[in-house]
Amino acid sequence: MKELLAEGLSPRVRGHLWIECEDGRFLGPGRVELLEKISEHGSISKAAAAMGMSYKKAWDLVDSMNAQARQPVVRTQAGGKQGGGATLTAEGEQLIAAYRELHRRFQAFLEQESARL
Amino acid sequence: MKELLAEGLSPRVRGHLWIECEDGRFLGPGRVELLEKISEHGSISKAAAAMGMSYKKAWDLVDSMNAQARQPVVRTQAGGKQGGGATLTAEGEQLIAAYRELHRRFQAFLEQESARL
Repeated sequence: MKELLAEGLSPRVRGHLWIECEDGRFLGPGRVELLEKISEHGSISKAAAAMGMSYKKAWDLVDSMNAQARQPVVRTQAGGKQGGGATLTAEGEQLIAAYRELHRRFQAFLEQESARL
Repeated sequence: MKELLAEGLSPRVRGHLWIECEDGRFLGPGRVELLEKISEHGSISKAAAAMGMSYKKAWDLVDSMNAQARQPVVRTQAGGKQGGGATLTAEGEQLIAAYRELHRRFQAFLEQESARL
């Protein structure tokens, strides 16, 4: 394709990837980043803040993942003044690992296709 | 990943793909569809209407592709009352063909990754 482009331009193939079930989206880059931030901050509200996402949106995403997963991927603890905390379950960690593997293969595909252009 | 999901749910990998240059997006599903509709209708305005896209938006996309391509991908003819017509150049046809090939390989990648889940 490079020969069809103006001199000096370097085309690259880019893309997005996500996992859907019958009920709609299950996992994508935003949801995985949210899980990672929850794991880092131990709190859904802090994770949402770190991503510039509303608390409601973050909860909706966690609810959607928990509803589709066999075992919850995020576990919340009722708390005192601090509003409790949230941790990833083992299943949540497995989900992140599986997505990262998929993402790595996708990046390799994009590199390979970019080289073909 | 299937074992992490509720019983009865069948996860699938889905995605979007596009081609970027230094100047931003060059080609993606919407632009390719626009080229196909221009080829079909022989007119940018009819192609835009068929896609529910504004005439200005369609022109902006055509301008963006023509500006990045070594040779124009769409050629317009000044016309009379009907406002002229538009045709794809050989380069425009080659672009569609190359994108379709890329898209076919991407679909195969998605199928393969869906089967792995």
